[in-house]
Amino acid sequence: MARVGFVGLGVMGSPMAGHLAKAGHSVTVWNRSTGKSAHAVECGASEVRDLAELAAGCEVVCTCVGRTEDVRQVLAMLMPAAKPGTLFIDHSTISSTGAAQIHSELAAEGFSFLDAPITGGSMGAQKGQLTVFVGGTADDFERAKAILPAYSKRYELVGGPGAGQLMKAANQIAVGGALLALCESLAFAHKSGLDLAQTRDLLSTGAAGSWAFENYGPKILAQDWSPGFSIDNQLKDFGYCHESAEVVGAWLPGMTVVEELLQRLQSQGRGGDTTAALYEVLAQAGAD
Amino acid sequence: MARVGFVGLGVMGSPMAGHLAKAGHSVTVWNRSTGKSAHAVECGASEVRDLAELAAGCEVVCTCVGRTEDVRQVLAMLMPAAKPGTLFIDHSTISSTGAAQIHSELAAEGFSFLDAPITGGSMGAQKGQLTVFVGGTADDFERAKAILPAYSKRYELVGGPGAGQLMKAANQIAVGGALLALCESLAFAHKSGLDLAQTRDLLSTGAAGSWAFENYGPKILAQDWSPGFSIDNQLKDFGYCHESAEVVGAWLPGMTVVEELLQRLQSQGRGGDTTAALYEVLAQAGAD
Repeated sequence: MARVGFVGLGVMGSPMAGHLAKAGHSVTVWNRSTGKSAHAVECGASEVRDLAELAAGCEVVCTCVGRTEDVRQVLAMLMPAAKPGTLFIDHSTISSTGAAQIHSELAAEGFSFLDAPITGGSMGAQKGQLTVFVGGTADDFERAKAILPAYSKRYELVGGPGAGQLMKAANQIAVGGALLALCESLAFAHKSGLDLAQTRDLLSTGAAGSWAFENYGPKILAQDWSPGFSIDNQLKDFGYCHESAEVVGAWLPGMTVVEELLQRLQSQGRGGDTTAALYEVLAQAGAD
Repeated sequence: MARVGFVGLGVMGSPMAGHLAKAGHSVTVWNRSTGKSAHAVECGASEVRDLAELAAGCEVVCTCVGRTEDVRQVLAMLMPAAKPGTLFIDHSTISSTGAAQIHSELAAEGFSFLDAPITGGSMGAQKGQLTVFVGGTADDFERAKAILPAYSKRYELVGGPGAGQLMKAANQIAVGGALLALCESLAFAHKSGLDLAQTRDLLSTGAAGSWAFENYGPKILAQDWSPGFSIDNQLKDFGYCHESAEVVGAWLPGMTVVEELLQRLQSQGRGGDTTAALYEVLAQAGAD
């Protein structure tokens, strides 16, 4: 069992830190805003209000915050107090190029870094059933194997520094496309006068079937736009997809359509809604 | 058991007619070109070379041909010899508006018509496990229940005349979108230097997962562009999707992207390839 710090107790981080503590690790947590630590503390974690204190007492520090700049900010506060050889595992979805740069910078200071973005949603985090895409060295990945099983059903080294973020980007591209396929099909069915429940049911068992049909289909039928995965988060991730696509020379015509449709909702103040609300953009188009 | 005619012994019709004969129906088959009847005849069907002869001897006639005009042409040759009350079940994917018009014209002559496009692919046809979307009257659908189970695992009345084609269009819109999501994600992964087999494997079990990931993913990994479902057929179906979308006022931005990408392959003489070859358009883009 390891002494593990966990920074960022959001909808994902809070249950992840709880699973780490329940697995028997000695867990110390920190969050920028207060009042987020209740679950982790219940599971046996200790809370500190000082990042340096957290860094000084841990050999592994997990971060699950927002954007590249948030990760950098947190690391800048952790590093002065961190012990040589500390392994930093970043579960945030950030820039792949940024993750590779952070890896180099930390290596120069004698620290280890893995970019390890997660997928599986809030439900996966609560169940400890996340999937983790890991970029970094094989040695650091070996060390992380003591930690990751606490909250993930699957974790794989997918390449060197930044590769975890590239795999996450590939995932978000496919997630966005599957969402569009679902919403465009159901909006067409709605306008055609077909029964939406029958349409979802018939189509989901054949060549049109997808996780999106199974999981977002019912939300669309119920007009339930609570997240789920929010439009703001999807658009944040798409930004990193574009950045990587430019670096590697990839073309993302489908994702760009999804992005434009979701931006319409965001500009209407609906960034906190589930991405499945994309259905409404298509169902209401041309109705005026 | 019924006396059933089957017109159109292509990759779908041939096994369907075979299943009808094996189920104990008295089956008569016809195909425009010769040499397609071997399988149906082996299963117990009789072949005729005259559509009038087929029509005269059957109370139900199934058609599985190409486009709206092909269905009209075949029906024009069948109707003069058909018995009053004959039920025509068209399994072709054609225009929804055209199907509704055919329904009216046949009703005026004392015949019954169901638009009953199918999904499940050549494998589904061979296994007798198709899904059938039926448009028409409830009474005619009741009559069709004596026939459809021979080659389908699922058949549902989805609305009045033309509604079966609308459901098929909704299906093709979703199938096209799921294909794009898969190909765009894998092409990005390829350009990013990720392992394609690992990418498909990791992504297919999460929120990006789909029938396309499961079934087309391995074809892309193997660079196997044999159909499957051909680009020519997908583009034919998209044409009917656009026609219906215009009628009902639906917007198909994702399908339009898929269509443009597949048209590039068709214009290179690759219309007979599987739709999964869409991957190549994206994987090769910007490489020069």
